[in-house]
Amino acid sequence: MKLSILGCHSATPRTNTNPTAQVLEIRNHMFLIDCGEGTQVELRRHKIKFVRIKHIFISHMHGDHYFGLVGLISTFRLLTREADLHIYCPKGLKEVITLQMKLADSWTNYKLIFHELDSNTSELIFEDDKVEVYTIPLDHRVYTNGFMFKEKDRDRKLDMNAILNRDIDVAYYRKLKQGFDIVDNKGELVENHSVTKPGRKPKSYAFCSDTAYNETIVPIIKGVDVLYHESTFLEQHKHLAEPTKHSTAIQAAEIAKRAEIGTLILGHYSTRYNDLECFRTEAQTIFDNVELAEDGKLFEF
Amino acid sequence: MKLSILGCHSATPRTNTNPTAQVLEIRNHMFLIDCGEGTQVELRRHKIKFVRIKHIFISHMHGDHYFGLVGLISTFRLLTREADLHIYCPKGLKEVITLQMKLADSWTNYKLIFHELDSNTSELIFEDDKVEVYTIPLDHRVYTNGFMFKEKDRDRKLDMNAILNRDIDVAYYRKLKQGFDIVDNKGELVENHSVTKPGRKPKSYAFCSDTAYNETIVPIIKGVDVLYHESTFLEQHKHLAEPTKHSTAIQAAEIAKRAEIGTLILGHYSTRYNDLECFRTEAQTIFDNVELAEDGKLFEF
Repeated sequence: MKLSILGCHSATPRTNTNPTAQVLEIRNHMFLIDCGEGTQVELRRHKIKFVRIKHIFISHMHGDHYFGLVGLISTFRLLTREADLHIYCPKGLKEVITLQMKLADSWTNYKLIFHELDSNTSELIFEDDKVEVYTIPLDHRVYTNGFMFKEKDRDRKLDMNAILNRDIDVAYYRKLKQGFDIVDNKGELVENHSVTKPGRKPKSYAFCSDTAYNETIVPIIKGVDVLYHESTFLEQHKHLAEPTKHSTAIQAAEIAKRAEIGTLILGHYSTRYNDLECFRTEAQTIFDNVELAEDGKLFEF
Repeated sequence: MKLSILGCHSATPRTNTNPTAQVLEIRNHMFLIDCGEGTQVELRRHKIKFVRIKHIFISHMHGDHYFGLVGLISTFRLLTREADLHIYCPKGLKEVITLQMKLADSWTNYKLIFHELDSNTSELIFEDDKVEVYTIPLDHRVYTNGFMFKEKDRDRKLDMNAILNRDIDVAYYRKLKQGFDIVDNKGELVENHSVTKPGRKPKSYAFCSDTAYNETIVPIIKGVDVLYHESTFLEQHKHLAEPTKHSTAIQAAEIAKRAEIGTLILGHYSTRYNDLECFRTEAQTIFDNVELAEDGKLFEF
């Protein structure tokens, strides 16, 4: 599981900071999460092949989370993309994009499929044989979802010593990896656990931005391996967090602690701060395992 | 008259090229012309104070000419701008911007005034005591205007030797600069031309992008000091210019020659070309005084 931070700052793009966008690489998927202005250039800078992005998740309709989307869709068209593109987003985004395509008299030559969300409870919005994606309803000034990416259980590993002691046809290996019991060449039952070991534990990632401190998400993200939680403010500006429905570093850490997650990544910093280490310092008063998002940073888990 | 090229490439923003945006500084105005994605960051890079931009001119509704506008408007709001902002644009842009503000539940705290254009003949769209701006109807795939910026006649210069030979009250100097005859302290008529010289010749600038080769603009831009004319293609791709309604470098030069303009600036290059000097070489077979726009370049006239 690799997470590329293309941008992790709030509000306005500047010469040295980008608004929110990140790419999660998980089981051969490249999921783009949020798409602030300039995201397509950052994708190029990170040498992420456009065609590998087939699913885009937009948290909410504030510009620093989606103003780069219409340009990306338009660039995909100019590059004669053919693959379908799925966009998971709040209601309204489809109208914004189609209005601009209509005015440009330029429709995509690939299928553009909007999955407009309006539920206030967590729901499964994507699933294939390897990954599931759930919404995480957040508490912000407009309708906002975080997203939870969960690997499905991985194949069991074959215990080759045990297998070679039994007379098992190679054709059954796939069934064994999938956890089934089989019958060997002598007609005897082979219990799965006697010849396989558990596969690697499936990984999970939760993206929560933007949101006020919100304990109702704790059961949804319980035990997640990696949590990206916004921390727009430090403690000294806590009074700004409440009216703007953002979080402080300490509040993000409090959520991480309650949800018993693995690693907390902080981000969505207000542009008023120059020294990001203060975010880590404050969060670590509550929760140990804290990382700082930075534009251009790659996390591997 | 200063022209800052923020971006001069067509189609998609890339790590090393920006889509169209430029700032014309003329008689204390800072006019922003087109506003592709990333323009607000380029304005910061050029240290152009946001508050000095009060008038934005959008040529047409293709993304590489306006996708940066909604972000700029939004940033102005976050920076608590108070000054009015005027936007001259094709019909439809107001709907695009207001829809996005509605979805974000974020209205500007400054006055945002759209001047939506739909005329197919040149019209005066801005005027104050120093500058006039006219549209230049262009021939592109969607409704498109170029813009012509003309300084008004400048004040006449006082001929101080001639003035001191007459008994003229200082209070009359302003009238003399404005071209009026006056009466001196002896009651004698002072003919204006006897004590003043012509002021500096007023400057003019025409922006023409995007457009097919279109001779109907020649009378409108006749004799302009500086013409920015798109040249998306070189001669080898002339066959692409016609269906896409763009121009070649030679066509831009042909317009410059027919309109007897001063300096031709080429731009809006297709991203397929690496060596821009070829644009100059081809244009100079028709018209001598050719400059190449480059992202980040400042022209002073």
